[in-house]
Amino acid sequence: MPDTHPQFEALKAHATQTGYLLSSAALLEWDQQTKLPSSGGQYRSEQITYLAKLIHERETDSQLGDLLHELSESQDVLGAAPASDIATTVRELKRKYERQVKVPSDLAQALAGASSKGQQIWVSARHENDFSLFQPALEQIINLKQQQADAIGFDDCRYDALLEEYEPGGSTREVNSVFDDLSAELVPLLEQLKGCGQQVDSSVLHRVFSIATQEAFVKQASAKIGFDYKRGRLDTTHHPFCTEIGPDDCRITTRYNETFFSSAFFGTLHEAGHGMYEQGLRGDWYGLPPGQYCSLGIHESQSRLWENLVGRSEDFWKYFFPMAQDAFSDALSDVTVDHFHRAINEITPSLIRVEADEVTYNLHIIIRFELERSLIDGDLAVGDLPEAWNEKYQRALGITPPDDASGVLQDVHWSAGLIGYFPTYSLGNLYASQFFDAANTQIGGLGELFAKGDFTPLKTWLNENIHQRGKCLPPKELCKEITGEELSHKSLIKHLKSKIVRTYGPTA
Amino acid sequence: MPDTHPQFEALKAHATQTGYLLSSAALLEWDQQTKLPSSGGQYRSEQITYLAKLIHERETDSQLGDLLHELSESQDVLGAAPASDIATTVRELKRKYERQVKVPSDLAQALAGASSKGQQIWVSARHENDFSLFQPALEQIINLKQQQADAIGFDDCRYDALLEEYEPGGSTREVNSVFDDLSAELVPLLEQLKGCGQQVDSSVLHRVFSIATQEAFVKQASAKIGFDYKRGRLDTTHHPFCTEIGPDDCRITTRYNETFFSSAFFGTLHEAGHGMYEQGLRGDWYGLPPGQYCSLGIHESQSRLWENLVGRSEDFWKYFFPMAQDAFSDALSDVTVDHFHRAINEITPSLIRVEADEVTYNLHIIIRFELERSLIDGDLAVGDLPEAWNEKYQRALGITPPDDASGVLQDVHWSAGLIGYFPTYSLGNLYASQFFDAANTQIGGLGELFAKGDFTPLKTWLNENIHQRGKCLPPKELCKEITGEELSHKSLIKHLKSKIVRTYGPTA
Repeated sequence: MPDTHPQFEALKAHATQTGYLLSSAALLEWDQQTKLPSSGGQYRSEQITYLAKLIHERETDSQLGDLLHELSESQDVLGAAPASDIATTVRELKRKYERQVKVPSDLAQALAGASSKGQQIWVSARHENDFSLFQPALEQIINLKQQQADAIGFDDCRYDALLEEYEPGGSTREVNSVFDDLSAELVPLLEQLKGCGQQVDSSVLHRVFSIATQEAFVKQASAKIGFDYKRGRLDTTHHPFCTEIGPDDCRITTRYNETFFSSAFFGTLHEAGHGMYEQGLRGDWYGLPPGQYCSLGIHESQSRLWENLVGRSEDFWKYFFPMAQDAFSDALSDVTVDHFHRAINEITPSLIRVEADEVTYNLHIIIRFELERSLIDGDLAVGDLPEAWNEKYQRALGITPPDDASGVLQDVHWSAGLIGYFPTYSLGNLYASQFFDAANTQIGGLGELFAKGDFTPLKTWLNENIHQRGKCLPPKELCKEITGEELSHKSLIKHLKSKIVRTYGPTA
Repeated sequence: MPDTHPQFEALKAHATQTGYLLSSAALLEWDQQTKLPSSGGQYRSEQITYLAKLIHERETDSQLGDLLHELSESQDVLGAAPASDIATTVRELKRKYERQVKVPSDLAQALAGASSKGQQIWVSARHENDFSLFQPALEQIINLKQQQADAIGFDDCRYDALLEEYEPGGSTREVNSVFDDLSAELVPLLEQLKGCGQQVDSSVLHRVFSIATQEAFVKQASAKIGFDYKRGRLDTTHHPFCTEIGPDDCRITTRYNETFFSSAFFGTLHEAGHGMYEQGLRGDWYGLPPGQYCSLGIHESQSRLWENLVGRSEDFWKYFFPMAQDAFSDALSDVTVDHFHRAINEITPSLIRVEADEVTYNLHIIIRFELERSLIDGDLAVGDLPEAWNEKYQRALGITPPDDASGVLQDVHWSAGLIGYFPTYSLGNLYASQFFDAANTQIGGLGELFAKGDFTPLKTWLNENIHQRGKCLPPKELCKEITGEELSHKSLIKHLKSKIVRTYGPTA
C-alpha cells in the first residue's frame, strides 16, 4: 500500500495530532513532578483534566471509528502481512478504539473520578496507617473495574479484560501458569538460602556518598550504557519514572540517598533502560503503533535487563568499580570489587516491594497478582484484603507486615485504578532474562564486552530485535521470534540460582 | 447580573478552556527555552503549532461570536458599569474576537509562516552581519502587516491598528506626541551630560561575581521585593523573560555574567516586576479579562518600576549593599555604597538597546517607533532602512553603528512580525515614573521604607491600584484614575534629571 493512500494518511494524521496532545499532557505531568511551584497543583490538575478530555474525545471520535472500519476491510490491509506497518497501525488503533468506545462515557468518567479521589484517600490512609479509611474507596474502584471489564468483554475471566490493557494478547491463565512455575522454584530457593547460614555484608553501600558526586556518576553510567542525553534528560523526583514528550525527548528521573548507594544508581539504570527503549523506537512512526512500545511487560524487560542482568553483573563492575572508587574514594577505597558485587546482590525477604532484591521481588508481584485477581473475580472481599495480604506474605516470604502502611497500603496502583498492571513487572523480569540469554548467544561474550565498557552491541541488538519492532508483534510472539522459546520461568530461575551461588557460595 | 446567568457562565467556561490550552502552550515554550534536550526542537515546534491551531479555532469559533453578540446586547451588560467584571469580560473578549475574525485565515496563516521563517532568516542574517539577506523576508512581513492592518481597519493611520494589539485604546498620534516631548528633553539632556566632563567609574561592576553566589543573591532580592517563589520560579535562559503557566505558576528567567554584576541582578528585578504583576492579578478571574494584564505598556511599567525606580535608587542600596558586600566580599569590600550607586546609574550612549541606560533607552525606542511607523505607512522602503537607522542613531545618540548586527539587525521583533510593540517599552517607562510618584505621594516616604527593606507597602499599592484592575480600564484611563494625570513625559524627565544630578553632580 502506497503511503499516499488518502485514508491511511488521514488515519496517521489523526493519531499524530492526538500524539501532540498526549505529549503535551506528558510535559504537564513531568513538570508537575519536577518543576512546578508548590502552589501550582490545583490549576495543573485542571489543565491535565482538560487535555485528557480532548484526548478522550479524539480517541472515541466516530470519524476515527469509520476510518478504522473502512481501512480494516480494505484489500490493502487485509492483504498485508500482520506485522507490516500498515496492518499493525490499523489493527492496534482499532483495538484501542474499540476498547475505548465499549466503555460508556459515564462509566469512564466515574472511573477517572474514583481513581483521582482514590489516590488522595490512599495517601491519607497510608499516612494514618489505617486500611479501613481506604476500604470504601477501594470497594468503589473494584466495583467500577468489574463493570469496565464486563463492558469490554472477555472469554475466560474478567481479569483478562483488564490485563489486556497493559499486556496485549496476554491471558490470566497463561500468566497464572508461569507465575505458579516461578513461585514453585522461588519459595524453596529462599528457604534453602535462609538455611545455608551465609551472610553478605552490605554495610559498605550505606556509607556516605555525596549527592553531587552521585549525580555526576549516575549520569556518566547511564550515558555510557547508551541513554542519549541529547535526546533526553535526568531529573530528581520522589518517585522515579520515565516519560517521553516527543520522539527526541525522553525524560527519566531518580532519587538520591546520601547514605545508600544503590537507590540512585540502580534506579537510574532501571529508568535509563526504559528510556533507551523509548529512544530506540522508530521516530518516523512516533505516536503510531509501529513506533510505540509493545507492552508494559516488554517495557519492564528493558529496565530490568539493564538494572539487573547488566548492572548487577560482575563484568559490569569490572569496568565501573575503579571509576566508582575514584568518585567515592572515602566510601570505597577499602572495598574490593568482589565485596561490592556481593553487597549489591544481597538477598533478604523484606516487606516493601520497591526495595526488594531480584529473587524476592517476584514473590511480591505474585502475591499482588493473586489478590487483585480474586478481588476482580469477586472471590475476595475488600474488607478481607489486609488479612489475605498478611497471610500470603507469611507463607511466601516468612514475614508478616506489622501494619497496613508496610503491608497492603504500600502501593499506589489499586487506588489509581491500575488493576492488571502488577503482573507486567514480573513478566518484565522473565522476558529480560530470556532476551539477555538470546542476545548473549547471538552476540557472544557479552560479559567480556561489559568488562571493557562496551555496551553498544547489546544496545544495538535490543534496538533491532525489540525497539524497532514497536507493536508489530504481540509480546508473546515477539519473545518466541527473537528467543526461539515461549515465555517461561526457566531462564530467570537459572540466572537467579547462578547469582545466589556467586553471592553466597556453592552451599547456598 | 447574577454569576449564574447561563450565557455568561458559558462565555467564562469557553475562555477558561481556551486558557488551559494557552497555558499548556506557554509551558511548552518555557520548557523549550529552559529544559528541552538539544535534539527535541523539531517536535516541540510541531506541538506548539498544533496547540496554536486549536487555540485559533477556539478564538474564532462562531459559537463564541454568537455568545458575545447576544451578551453584548443584553440589558445585563448594557446596564453594567464599563469597568465592572461582566462588562469588561464581554467587551474585551469581543474586541479580541472581532480583531481575530477580521483577519482572513489565509492571511493569518501567511503571517504565522512569514514570522516563523523571518526569525530564522534574521538569526542567520545577524550572524552574517548582512541586512540584505534579511531584506526580502522583512519586505514580505511589512506587506503582510499592512494587509493585516487594512483588514482590521483604523480611523487615522494603519499603525493604529497594529498598536491596538499591544496597547488597547492607544493611538499613534498620542504616542507620537508624548514621544516628541520626551525626545525634545532627552537629546539636549544627553548633550549637556556629554559636555559636563564628569565620569562615573563603573569598573567595580566588572569584577568577578561568582555565578552561584549571584544565583542566591538575585533570588533573595527578588523574593524580598515580593516575587512569591511558592507561586513561581527562576531559571536561566539566553534571553530573559517572564511567562505565566497558571494563576499560581509564574516563571521568570535571567542570565548570568560572571564579570558583570548588573546583567543578572537588574534583569531579575525587571522580570520579577513583570512576575509580581502576574502574581497580583485576580486568580478567580484567571484567563478572563478582569484577571488579565491591562496592556503591554502597563506590564512594562511594572518591570521598569522595580528595576529602575526601586532597584537603582539610593535607598534600595542602603538596605541591600551590606548584603551584597557580604555575598561578594572579594569584589565589593573596598567599594562604598555611593560609588556602587553611581556605577549602576552610569549614562553612556551605546548601540545596543537591551544594554542601554535609563536615559538613552527611550531614544532607542523612539527611533524604532518612528522607523516602523514609516515602514507601515509606506513612507520608508525596507531597502532604505539601514541608512535611516544609522542617521537616526547619529542624530539622537551621536553614534553610528559600524555594522548591521549592532544596528538595524539587533532586535528580533520585526522578524517575528511584532510591529507596534516597541513603543510599549517607553510607555512602560513613562507609566512607571507616574505610578511611582503617585504611590510615593499616597503612601509617603517610600525611600525610607526601602532603606529598611520594607517593600510591602509599594507592592500592596500596585496590587490594589493596578494588578487587581485587570483589563477593567484601558491603560490611559487607569493612569488618569490612579495618578490624577494624563500620560506625559514630565514625571520621567524629572526623575532622570534628578538621577543625573545625583550621579554626575550638579554641574551635569
